[in-house]
Amino acid sequence: MAYFRIDYNSNALRRTTSFDMLIPNDPGADALESEREKPLYTLFLLHGYHAKAYNWVPDGLAQQYRFAIVIPTGENSFYLNGTATGTAYQTMVGEELVDYVRRTFGLATSPENTCIAGLSMGGFGALHTGLAYPDRFGKIGALSSALIIHEIAKMKPGTDNGMANYDYYVRQFGPLDQLEASDNNPETLVRKLKAAGKKIPDIYMACGTEDFLLSANREMHRFLQKEKVPHEYHEAPGNHNSAFWAEHIAYIVKWMFEKK
Amino acid sequence: MAYFRIDYNSNALRRTTSFDMLIPNDPGADALESEREKPLYTLFLLHGYHAKAYNWVPDGLAQQYRFAIVIPTGENSFYLNGTATGTAYQTMVGEELVDYVRRTFGLATSPENTCIAGLSMGGFGALHTGLAYPDRFGKIGALSSALIIHEIAKMKPGTDNGMANYDYYVRQFGPLDQLEASDNNPETLVRKLKAAGKKIPDIYMACGTEDFLLSANREMHRFLQKEKVPHEYHEAPGNHNSAFWAEHIAYIVKWMFEKK
Amino acid sequence: MAYFRIDYNSNALRRTTSFDMLIPNDPGADALESEREKPLYTLFLLHGYHAKAYNWVPDGLAQQYRFAIVIPTGENSFYLNGTATGTAYQTMVGEELVDYVRRTFGLATSPENTCIAGLSMGGFGALHTGLAYPDRFGKIGALSSALIIHEIAKMKPGTDNGMANYDYYVRQFGPLDQLEASDNNPETLVRKLKAAGKKIPDIYMACGTEDFLLSANREMHRFLQKEKVPHEYHEAPGNHNSAFWAEHIAYIVKWMFEKK
Amino acid sequence: MAYFRIDYNSNALRRTTSFDMLIPNDPGADALESEREKPLYTLFLLHGYHAKAYNWVPDGLAQQYRFAIVIPTGENSFYLNGTATGTAYQTMVGEELVDYVRRTFGLATSPENTCIAGLSMGGFGALHTGLAYPDRFGKIGALSSALIIHEIAKMKPGTDNGMANYDYYVRQFGPLDQLEASDNNPETLVRKLKAAGKKIPDIYMACGTEDFLLSANREMHRFLQKEKVPHEYHEAPGNHNSAFWAEHIAYIVKWMFEKK
Repeated sequence: MAYFRIDYNSNALRRTTSFDMLIPNDPGADALESEREKPLYTLFLLHGYHAKAYNWVPDGLAQQYRFAIVIPTGENSFYLNGTATGTAYQTMVGEELVDYVRRTFGLATSPENTCIAGLSMGGFGALHTGLAYPDRFGKIGALSSALIIHEIAKMKPGTDNGMANYDYYVRQFGPLDQLEASDNNPETLVRKLKAAGKKIPDIYMACGTEDFLLSANREMHRFLQKEKVPHEYHEAPGNHNSAFWAEHIAYIVKWMFEKK
Repeated sequence: MAYFRIDYNSNALRRTTSFDMLIPNDPGADALESEREKPLYTLFLLHGYHAKAYNWVPDGLAQQYRFAIVIPTGENSFYLNGTATGTAYQTMVGEELVDYVRRTFGLATSPENTCIAGLSMGGFGALHTGLAYPDRFGKIGALSSALIIHEIAKMKPGTDNGMANYDYYVRQFGPLDQLEASDNNPETLVRKLKAAGKKIPDIYMACGTEDFLLSANREMHRFLQKEKVPHEYHEAPGNHNSAFWAEHIAYIVKWMFEKK
Repeated sequence: MAYFRIDYNSNALRRTTSFDMLIPNDPGADALESEREKPLYTLFLLHGYHAKAYNWVPDGLAQQYRFAIVIPTGENSFYLNGTATGTAYQTMVGEELVDYVRRTFGLATSPENTCIAGLSMGGFGALHTGLAYPDRFGKIGALSSALIIHEIAKMKPGTDNGMANYDYYVRQFGPLDQLEASDNNPETLVRKLKAAGKKIPDIYMACGTEDFLLSANREMHRFLQKEKVPHEYHEAPGNHNSAFWAEHIAYIVKWMFEKK
Repeated sequence: MAYFRIDYNSNALRRTTSFDMLIPNDPGADALESEREKPLYTLFLLHGYHAKAYNWVPDGLAQQYRFAIVIPTGENSFYLNGTATGTAYQTMVGEELVDYVRRTFGLATSPENTCIAGLSMGGFGALHTGLAYPDRFGKIGALSSALIIHEIAKMKPGTDNGMANYDYYVRQFGPLDQLEASDNNPETLVRKLKAAGKKIPDIYMACGTEDFLLSANREMHRFLQKEKVPHEYHEAPGNHNSAFWAEHIAYIVKWMFEKK
C-alpha cells in the first residue's frame, strides 16, 4: 500500500494543511495489471478529537475492496466552518480537498465512487460533511459519533462540559442557542435535503454499548427513523476505543464497497 | 545537520501537534569530538501567517555557532492564548514546548542558552513570547514583525482588513477594544516587566524599507526608545519576502550567538 | 506517545539515513510528573526484509513499561557490514545509532537499560547485533528470525533461493563459503563470547509453528542449548505475519522490562 | 507548491522506497483556474552522493514554468542496476517510478513532457538514465556531473579513491575492467543510440571552473562533440556546491520548459 503525506496550500484555512493518503496501487512483482490501476473508490476518513490524521482501517481491506483512503487533518474543529477567517474546515474537507484529490489523482470523481467515514468527532464529521455534500459523497460511515449538538446547545457562557469550554463550542459550532436550527446540525441538513427532494447519502452508524456517546447515537437513530431515512444502525459490546473502531470500520468498508 | 520531525501530545492545544527540530550534532567522520556534543544554544524559530513550520535559517550557521533550532507549528494563531479550550498557543510554545525540549534533549535549559526569533506573524510571536517568558528566553529576534495591535484594536465587527476578518482577530487577540491594555500587547508586557524590575530579554528588530509593516515596526521602535529599553533596530532595503529574511536572520544569529 | 522521524548523517552508510523513534513522555494534563520523565529503557526494533522502519509494538506497552523505541532503517541489509564503502549497517545500528541516541536523548546508556528486538530479517539482526555488542545490549528478542546462514552458505553463483540471488547474499554476508566461520554468523559470536568469558545478552526467541523459518529457529535453539547458553525459546501456532508478531512482541517486552 | 512525501513498494529494490514530489497546483484563492490544472511538465531530479532526496530547485520556477518535480531516493547507487537482487536503481527511476507517476498522477506521460536533471552523482544519473530511456525523457540537465567512469575503470582491488573503495565501485558499476564498454557507461549508450538511429535526448551540462570534476565534464563534452551530438555545455565560475547548483538549475529549467 503506497503511503502519501501531503502538504498543500489551503485557501479554506488560509495556510498550509496536511493530509495523509493511502493508495493500493503498488503491488508485488507478480501482481495482475489490474492491481496497478487506479482504485475503484475513495474513502475520506475523519479522525477524532485530540488526535491527528492517521489510518485506522485494518491492513488488507483497501487492497481487497480497491479503495484509496484520504485522511485530512481536522485539528479539533468538528469539521465545521467557523466564522473567523481561516476556519472553514467543512469547506476544506468537503469541497477543497475533494477537488484537490480529483485534479491531482483523478479519484473521488462522483458520489458513486466516494464515501466518507469517521470515528467520534470524525463520526459527527462524516455525517455532517456527507449530508452537506450529497453530490460528492454517496455513503457515510459513522462510528461512536460525537453527536453532541443537543447537549452543547444548552451550555451557558463560562461553563465547561469536561471535554471543552463554552468558548470552544461557540468557535466551532457558532452561537449555541441557534445551533439546533443551524446547518451545523446534521438533523437540519437531513430536513433540508428531504424538503428539497434530494438524495440523502446512505448511512451506516455503529456505537459500543459501553460508550458514553450511546444515548446521543440512539437519539440520531430515532431521528432518522422518524424522518424515514433508511440507514444501518448497529450497537455492539464495546467502548470508545480503537478495538471497537478497528472491528467496525471493517464492517463499514464491506458495506460500502463490496460488489453485490 | 540532523533533522527531526516530531509529533507530541499537546495539552495546551488538546491534540497532537508537530514541531521540526534541527540539531548540528551529526558531523562527518573526521570531525572533532566537540562537534558531536550537545549544541551550546537553542533557537526557537516562529513561522509567519499562512505558512507552516519550516527552517529558513541559511545552511551552515547552526554548525558555525552551535545552536539547535526548534520550529513549532503555530497555524495562524499569532502565538497567543485564545480563551477557547485547546487554543493556548502562547503556553504551547513558551512553556510546554520549552519544557518538552528540556526533558527530551537536555537543551533550552536557561535564558542564557535559549533565544527566540520569527518573521512576520512569527516576529510578533517572538517579541510577545520572549517578553512573556523572560525567565526562559534571553534574546529575541524579530523580522518584519506583524505588529498589528494598534491597527486591529480599531476594527469593527463585520469588517475585514484584507488579511482576515474581525472574528478571526477576536479569536486570536481577545476583545479588540481591550487589546491595547491586555497582555496580548507586547507593549503591556514591556511595561509590566519594567514596573516589576525584571530583566527584559535583549531585542533585535529588522524590517525592509519597502515592507508594508514598516510603520508598525517604527512604532514599536519608538515605544522601546521611549521606555528606555535598549535594543537593536535595523531598517534595510527589502520587502516582506524570503530574500530579506534569509539575509537578516544571519545577522540575528550572529548577534545572538557569536562569542564576544 | 511522542513520535519522531529523524534524518541524520550516517558516516557508517556515507549518506543521510532515517530512523523513527517513539518516546512515551507526553502524557495527558493530569499525569504524574514521573510520566513526563525520561523512560527507563530503550528498545531498538529491527524491521524485516522488503519493509521499512515502522512500529509494530502494540499501543500502550511503551507507556506501561516505560521504554522508548528506536527503529532504524536497515533496507535489505540483514543489519550486517558489507565490505563496500557505505554498507556498514551493523556499525550503523550497534555503534553509531546507539551513540547518537545517547548523546541526543541521554537514553540507551548501558546494557542494563538497552535491548534489541526484531522480526524475520530483523530477528536475525537482533541476535547478531546484540551478540556483536554485548556491552551495549542487555537483552535480545528475536521473532520468526531469518536464521538463514546455513542455508545460504551452500549457495552457488548464479542461483536464486526464491528470496534473493547469490550476488545479493554475497553483498550482505560476504563470501558464502566462509560464512559459517565468520563473525556474520551469530553462532560464531556466541562461541567467541564464551571463549572470552564475556557476558552473553539474555535471549528470547519465538517462531510460529506454520512459519517457513521454523526449522532454522529450532536449529539455533539446539545450538544455544548445546553451547549451554540459557535462553527463552517459544513455539506457538502462527505463521510469518503481523498477527504473530503483534502477539509475541508483547510477551517479549514484558520479559524484557517488567520489574521482578 | 504542494509537497508530497511518498513511500511505495518498489519491486526493483525489493522493499519500500520513498520519493518526494512537488506539484504547483495549489495556488491562492484568486488564482486562475489554469493554475489549478495539471502541470504541463515533469522534472525528475536526482540528488548526489552522501545525500538524501531534497528539492534544490529555487522557489517560484515550478509555478512559472508549470512543472512538477519528482525526487527519488537513490542512496549512493549512482542510479545504476547492480547484479544483486534489490539493487536495480536504474530500473527503479527510469521505469518503475516513471510508470508509478504516470498511473497515479497522469504526469510524465511522454518524452515531450518529461525531463531529468541532477547534480554530482545525480548529474551522472541524469545523463545515464536519460540516455537509457530516450523514449521516456526528452531532455537531460546535468550539473557538476560525477562522470567518473574512466577514473574508476582503472581501480585495483583493495584500493580507495578517497570517495569510496573498490568494492563499492564494483557493486554499483559492475566489473570495473568491463565498465567502459558496458551499458553503465553513458558513452556506450550514446554510441548505441546513434548506431540504432534513435533520438538522443537534448543535453545541457554545466560545471564550475573550480569544481574537482571539471576535467571529467570536459571529457564528456569532447566526447559528445566527437560523436556529433548537439548539446549545451557551460562552464562558469563556481565550485561543487549548492550556490552553483541553485544558480544553474534555474538556467536548466528555463532551457527545458520555456515556451519558444
